[in-house]
Amino acid sequence: MSKDPNTIYVGTKPAMSYVLAVITHFNDSDAKEVTLKARGRAITTTIDVVEIVRRKFLKELKTSKIEIGTEEMQREDGTRNVSTIEINLKR
Amino acid sequence: MSKDPNTIYVGTKPAMSYVLAVITHFNDSDAKEVTLKARGRAITTTIDVVEIVRRKFLKELKTSKIEIGTEEMQREDGTRNVSTIEINLKR
Repeated sequence: MSKDPNTIYVGTKPAMSYVLAVITHFNDSDAKEVTLKARGRAITTTIDVVEIVRRKFLKELKTSKIEIGTEEMQREDGTRNVSTIEINLKR
Repeated sequence: MSKDPNTIYVGTKPAMSYVLAVITHFNDSDAKEVTLKARGRAITTTIDVVEIVRRKFLKELKTSKIEIGTEEMQREDGTRNVSTIEINLKR
């Protein structure tokens, strides 16, 4: 995965961990935006994160882009397709 | 839930059930669009459905709108917020 400082990868931690990461991102830097990326089951967490941040913490944020896609994952028993999401938040 | 014939609610069935529902919708009617709605864990299934339909079956479909939101759900122990998604597909 890339190290773009404006990208947060959402995984299996509780939603609040990523909510904090988003808030910290906007507080610590002059960043005007952040992109959340996730795949598979973490997609639901990502949407929870965006909703919690927008409704409870940073109400001025706008979702400027929501993109969905498919990625091939290598597995022992072959490849498997997994859905992905990218949500861009701007202030 | 409403009975809008252009809306498919995605729940806990396997993704292929909803893939079939989308294909049937476009085959049986002169429908130009369909909206998939889901909440909670079914959000991931919804994105799987859209990706499978677009990549394997109806390649001309475009996602014209992806919206996320929050709904309050009544529970025995009070109310709980749950994330929602709406994806509109047009041909």
